[in-house]
Amino acid sequence: MIDVGLVGGTGYTGVELLRILAQHPEVNVKVVTSRGDQGTKVSQMFPSLRKFTDVEFTSPDLDALCACDLVFFATPHGVCMEMAPALIKAGVKIIDLGADFRISDVAEWSKWYHMEHTCPDLVAEAVYGLPEVNREQIRNARLIANPGCYPTATQLGFLPLIEAGLVETHNLIADCKSGVSGAGRQGKIDFLLCETSESFKAYGVGGHRHLPEIKQGLARANKGANVGLTFVPHLTPMIRGIHSTLYATLKADVADIQALYEKRYANEYFVDVLPKGDHPATRNVKGSNFCQIAVHRPQGGDVVVILSVIDNLVKGAAGQAVQNMNIMFGFNENMGMQQPALVP
Amino acid sequence: MIDVGLVGGTGYTGVELLRILAQHPEVNVKVVTSRGDQGTKVSQMFPSLRKFTDVEFTSPDLDALCACDLVFFATPHGVCMEMAPALIKAGVKIIDLGADFRISDVAEWSKWYHMEHTCPDLVAEAVYGLPEVNREQIRNARLIANPGCYPTATQLGFLPLIEAGLVETHNLIADCKSGVSGAGRQGKIDFLLCETSESFKAYGVGGHRHLPEIKQGLARANKGANVGLTFVPHLTPMIRGIHSTLYATLKADVADIQALYEKRYANEYFVDVLPKGDHPATRNVKGSNFCQIAVHRPQGGDVVVILSVIDNLVKGAAGQAVQNMNIMFGFNENMGMQQPALVP
Amino acid sequence: MIDVGLVGGTGYTGVELLRILAQHPEVNVKVVTSRGDQGTKVSQMFPSLRKFTDVEFTSPDLDALCACDLVFFATPHGVCMEMAPALIKAGVKIIDLGADFRISDVAEWSKWYHMEHTCPDLVAEAVYGLPEVNREQIRNARLIANPGCYPTATQLGFLPLIEAGLVETHNLIADCKSGVSGAGRQGKIDFLLCETSESFKAYGVGGHRHLPEIKQGLARANKGANVGLTFVPHLTPMIRGIHSTLYATLKADVADIQALYEKRYANEYFVDVLPKGDHPATRNVKGSNFCQIAVHRPQGGDVVVILSVIDNLVKGAAGQAVQNMNIMFGFNENMGMQQPALVP
Amino acid sequence: MIDVGLVGGTGYTGVELLRILAQHPEVNVKVVTSRGDQGTKVSQMFPSLRKFTDVEFTSPDLDALCACDLVFFATPHGVCMEMAPALIKAGVKIIDLGADFRISDVAEWSKWYHMEHTCPDLVAEAVYGLPEVNREQIRNARLIANPGCYPTATQLGFLPLIEAGLVETHNLIADCKSGVSGAGRQGKIDFLLCETSESFKAYGVGGHRHLPEIKQGLARANKGANVGLTFVPHLTPMIRGIHSTLYATLKADVADIQALYEKRYANEYFVDVLPKGDHPATRNVKGSNFCQIAVHRPQGGDVVVILSVIDNLVKGAAGQAVQNMNIMFGFNENMGMQQPALVP
Repeated sequence: MIDVGLVGGTGYTGVELLRILAQHPEVNVKVVTSRGDQGTKVSQMFPSLRKFTDVEFTSPDLDALCACDLVFFATPHGVCMEMAPALIKAGVKIIDLGADFRISDVAEWSKWYHMEHTCPDLVAEAVYGLPEVNREQIRNARLIANPGCYPTATQLGFLPLIEAGLVETHNLIADCKSGVSGAGRQGKIDFLLCETSESFKAYGVGGHRHLPEIKQGLARANKGANVGLTFVPHLTPMIRGIHSTLYATLKADVADIQALYEKRYANEYFVDVLPKGDHPATRNVKGSNFCQIAVHRPQGGDVVVILSVIDNLVKGAAGQAVQNMNIMFGFNENMGMQQPALVP
Repeated sequence: MIDVGLVGGTGYTGVELLRILAQHPEVNVKVVTSRGDQGTKVSQMFPSLRKFTDVEFTSPDLDALCACDLVFFATPHGVCMEMAPALIKAGVKIIDLGADFRISDVAEWSKWYHMEHTCPDLVAEAVYGLPEVNREQIRNARLIANPGCYPTATQLGFLPLIEAGLVETHNLIADCKSGVSGAGRQGKIDFLLCETSESFKAYGVGGHRHLPEIKQGLARANKGANVGLTFVPHLTPMIRGIHSTLYATLKADVADIQALYEKRYANEYFVDVLPKGDHPATRNVKGSNFCQIAVHRPQGGDVVVILSVIDNLVKGAAGQAVQNMNIMFGFNENMGMQQPALVP
Repeated sequence: MIDVGLVGGTGYTGVELLRILAQHPEVNVKVVTSRGDQGTKVSQMFPSLRKFTDVEFTSPDLDALCACDLVFFATPHGVCMEMAPALIKAGVKIIDLGADFRISDVAEWSKWYHMEHTCPDLVAEAVYGLPEVNREQIRNARLIANPGCYPTATQLGFLPLIEAGLVETHNLIADCKSGVSGAGRQGKIDFLLCETSESFKAYGVGGHRHLPEIKQGLARANKGANVGLTFVPHLTPMIRGIHSTLYATLKADVADIQALYEKRYANEYFVDVLPKGDHPATRNVKGSNFCQIAVHRPQGGDVVVILSVIDNLVKGAAGQAVQNMNIMFGFNENMGMQQPALVP
Repeated sequence: MIDVGLVGGTGYTGVELLRILAQHPEVNVKVVTSRGDQGTKVSQMFPSLRKFTDVEFTSPDLDALCACDLVFFATPHGVCMEMAPALIKAGVKIIDLGADFRISDVAEWSKWYHMEHTCPDLVAEAVYGLPEVNREQIRNARLIANPGCYPTATQLGFLPLIEAGLVETHNLIADCKSGVSGAGRQGKIDFLLCETSESFKAYGVGGHRHLPEIKQGLARANKGANVGLTFVPHLTPMIRGIHSTLYATLKADVADIQALYEKRYANEYFVDVLPKGDHPATRNVKGSNFCQIAVHRPQGGDVVVILSVIDNLVKGAAGQAVQNMNIMFGFNENMGMQQPALVP
């Protein structure tokens, strides 16, 4: 049994973490902070948790957090990097669901996030928490940069092709669609039901913060060589789910891409390669930590189309964080996350 | 560990039962039948279950079902009553999620369901599976009539008032709203997304099959005296959830209705009485077996307004069936159902 | 051709008014104000209007508004009453889509809206803009209090029964369901897609500002005698639409309620009484100014159930405002609103 | 005033045509056929049309149709080609909203639609009804092949680039998303609200019938030379709307793609090129005949991203059919279609 803290418990990734941890037999959620809602019961804000927790939101307090074994940050960028050094020093492990430690190149990070980084040394130490790539480093990490939602679906989809060197890497395309929960739980007109329901649109075509993160991950898979990527995110009228539709051009004819994917993920519990020709629906993974992937090669041409779906709040955020926690603390990797998706 | 069979595994209550049972430590799902889909893997039809079951649909076979400890029927009315006598004779317990055994008055049943009943003796024996009313009889039952969705939400909402004799019982009103999954998984134009989304309507105002079931339950709570009930169901543009808004007139001034409800359900894990003045949202219970109830008395008048919400597929069908199973087999009543609702 | 101004053009009733007026052959929209967005093109905020208007939002300016024949206020309560006296004095007609002039009893108004009224004399003069009741007074009015959305659907549903004196008036029930656009276009967490989609809930059971408005209208129909009304509004996961389910108890047996409704609304273009036994869906009127009504008497008992649906933004707000304008200026009452609902 | 007939009035394109024609001052809808629903009033099936038409569905009768000036076919493929020769012979003009005459290569058509074509000569004569390309031929056509929904959005998006010869044409990508109404009004489980809501998926990646249609159109724009196209359609949880996200590689640096698009569509009322950097939402055109297009060049690279949105039932079906009718009969091209989109 470990004690965990959660900084930023009022957003969608925060409450999702609380939902998952409520089912985890080895975790005691000791502290949940919210600067604006201290004194409120978590279950008052989220009545779905009434039978599961009596914790109250408290103001972020370093001492209380230092008494935890692990602290999750489900906060906007810039928050974790302020508190991380003290926590690390106190021997507390950290999983940051925000973006502070995802980009190794600190200058690049500053360019996209419009602030100076306050602890570049921890950036260097942080492990990028994609277990299907970095499981061994995660095991011993003190600080995990939990991947973004688009980056998770997109990297898992592209990795087998790029690691195997089978496709051109200068003209990759990731056409990605996200549910509205990706925009967070904040009072903005743009994400009202009346603005987003019954409508579909692209956004951030000129540049989105997940672009450098995806490119970094794909470059690592590409033996360090840069990749060219066009990334177009879209907002789709549903609560949860990401669907990445990925396009790459084969360098040469390849015997069996399906087999390549099945082999790559044979030992990955949370990555499920569908039978040839299938089309994963995001609802297949709604509320679960799975990534479902299908491989296509339309008309037998040289363009490979990969379909990769996750629940943005689970494998794209809180579930992956728990998966990382499980690895760090020696629990079964799927502990607390053995529930099927909620269908219908 | 018990072996269970499921007759009718392709509908929404069927797949919901499979979802819940996948998380149940004491159940082995041995047989899942579907006349039309035999030979198909369950996980092919429902890819959300890919990591959770390898069972194939089989044609309904009495011998295979007789080898189970318990058989669930998630079928249209008329199916269970054909197979029930042989199963009961073979010592197999039955939980019918359909309507065959819900109405004790066989003539009344025939009037609403437009067929002759083939085993009236089993109707007499069957226990109405609302644990909050009939827990002890359920414990020893051979055959459970699992309540309908509207009847569950509506009875749980009205019971404390009627049992205590506090309200007029000739002019009760139940204005109920259901998600579209209540209509089942069948290829009907009326329930296409393009017909039901972005729209709201009443249906069956002239008479709905859940009316006699609710009246029967309320009459039992009313010391056997008939009640007058106007029941209006509505279709609401969402997948899951029932919201019953209930109106009753107080006979005399009552000190504390809130306390009455809290006391009535103090020992009921799955019935959660909200603080005074709250308004339960159906999403609070989405995917969970809870019923949330709030009590109101607008402007201090003599009309009581009760708000009662459930997930129609869980507490209104498959979850309640598992709750009944847990009682029948001596498991903890909430075994397999300790997950919070999926919010957002 | 008349010149109109619109104060408050950035909300849902404002943009709906602009949509309808774009199709009106006798209206020139001259001024659209928004304190926060002056200088922005209306069509930049609402790209659906790109081919229909070149107007820019301006800061509310009395001189500019005084140059109009008519000014619509699509503003929160408290705004119109500040500007109304000067406009009326300048000979400009006013239709207030807000609540400032809806309640004749100024003290009652203050109780519900928590402010002092600044021009009680204009309250006395204002005409309640429900054309099916007050057509003649509207024709000559200088100031119209455009009814609220729930009040429109509910009054049109109840009126024939109450005017005819056929039902008890001490125990009326209005169980009403609204789409989310009724909450307006403001950045509040409560109305995000992720909070309201896939969920249904009641709100304001203890007291809602439309209660006194409905009671006032029903009392007028009841020869001035007060009525007892329980009004429960609900939020339903869709953009547009109100469904009022109304319950009343017959005083005595009545020959033909259906005929009563058909006769009452025979000459009302925008009120459509459906054939006996029908169930109107809100989508039947989505984007149109119609109210569809169906009459039921379940099991031939003494409870009458009336189903009344409107589009809250049209007949419940902007469309009714245009209907009022048409009456005031001698245009055909349905001018600019002869389009069918958008189905599917 | 012209008399028109509609074969197939019970589907979504059929009822959309009736909605639009109800607002058209020069059209009398004389005949609406439905083999299965003869004798039923159109307004009984679609109560949104109650105030707009008294027509009954009739069985398809050649004589009745021959008395029309124009017949629309809103039918599955294979229906129009059976009746077209007789109608054409009788001097009746035809607009086929189905697929019978869209593909000039009859053998290719048979390959995708799995039937023999019964009147290849009329295929040769038929004009592909994309007014922005073929306006002059449409003016004098006897038979119009109304384009498919994906092909309309995709061609309008790609045309300026291809006509100008600016992009590689061997590796075009069209990642397209459609609302569920594109699947038609038929009782199939796959398109129930409970199957499609809150989920997103690709389909037909291996090959979709709109692929050859799009390739044919793009090849014509490419001076007759074939193009290489990867086309991936997706189902998005909403009723109406198509969003095509199009990717092409520039051959050389180009001064101003934005200006190219603005010039190409300067005189096209229904094609609206948004300001640089905008992202069109499908709701901008919901219920209207507009196509909104935005042009992007992420990070100034050599990949052009075009965003093109339409309402699949309007510009992608019924609206474009009316646009074609207007051209054929000398009416203003936007007659009957001057309403803004329904927002919100």
